[in-house]
Amino acid sequence: MSRKPMVRPGGRSARVQEAVHAAVRELLAEVGRERLTVPMVASRAGVTPSTVYRRWGDLQELLSDVAVEHLRPETEPDDHGALPADMTAWAEQFIDEMSSPAGRAYIRDALLGDPDGSNAGQCSTYAAEQIDVIIARAAERGETVPELETVIDAVVAPIMYRILFRPTELDAPYARRLVASVLGGRQSAASQRRQRLIG
Amino acid sequence: MSRKPMVRPGGRSARVQEAVHAAVRELLAEVGRERLTVPMVASRAGVTPSTVYRRWGDLQELLSDVAVEHLRPETEPDDHGALPADMTAWAEQFIDEMSSPAGRAYIRDALLGDPDGSNAGQCSTYAAEQIDVIIARAAERGETVPELETVIDAVVAPIMYRILFRPTELDAPYARRLVASVLGGRQSAASQRRQRLIG
Repeated sequence: MSRKPMVRPGGRSARVQEAVHAAVRELLAEVGRERLTVPMVASRAGVTPSTVYRRWGDLQELLSDVAVEHLRPETEPDDHGALPADMTAWAEQFIDEMSSPAGRAYIRDALLGDPDGSNAGQCSTYAAEQIDVIIARAAERGETVPELETVIDAVVAPIMYRILFRPTELDAPYARRLVASVLGGRQSAASQRRQRLIG
Repeated sequence: MSRKPMVRPGGRSARVQEAVHAAVRELLAEVGRERLTVPMVASRAGVTPSTVYRRWGDLQELLSDVAVEHLRPETEPDDHGALPADMTAWAEQFIDEMSSPAGRAYIRDALLGDPDGSNAGQCSTYAAEQIDVIIARAAERGETVPELETVIDAVVAPIMYRILFRPTELDAPYARRLVASVLGGRQSAASQRRQRLIG
């Protein structure tokens, strides 16, 4: 958000952000979203309410920032040694996390207090970065790889669309069907090869 | 929303809803979203503010209902005589409407004031109904048709995802690529046949 100043790691601005985010996380757990207020957050974080308003505008924008923090992946995607396995494992975990009650609340918060779309864009960037890692590893192994944007359209978009607009089918078989649709013949080929190696 | 009473067409409840929705539409145009309040809407609609609060909860839920009304398609999809042409024309128009500034504002409003997801679900149902008409016509003509949910995943989801999270590529060529991805060989086959008929 344009309102936010540049944050230098370790600077005062970064310390304020960390204290305020921590206060929100604690208070969400203690009093819940419905009863949360900016003065309550400010008091817990040891800053004035006007510091919070100046930096975040309102409670919804603050909750949006905290939600995006929560949606940031903590680790790189697991390496299973082949593109179909990597992509399937990632999609299954993505569905799991995003369609959980906590995941849905964070996605909603991220969108709601985000007038300029920068936090929603950040969520998409997190997913794109993970897929990029998977594609780069596969390319390194000499596998044929799809375009990043094709995977976004075929795997990420349907999952997020169904979470927000059409809450059905959000399970592991659905994740596998989406991945199969984008990897096409390559996936069947790979599983056949595995089958031959096993059999 | 569970708060809303059943609305009988022509009944008092339906007249209140129509008056309140009309007041919102007028006031959005006159004073804008930022300055809109429930008392202002109630006064214009000739009802008490408590009537509005009782029925809609708050301004965001009211704006969500009005947005869903706006997102309801007014006509059936055009009939161009073949599945690829029908689906492409529909997808191009869907991108056009949804990614316009008004479309984006309605999608946002529909999602924001929608704690139980029923309005978001209604938006998805509108798109599904239009695609159903296109698929049914094609089946009637003897064309091979995709599943409705496959079209939702391959065409509707990427468009809505990019509008909300990843605002790129929202143009007619993108709509055509999405449709081609779901109709696959059938589309090329159809255009080849047309080419032969023309040539």
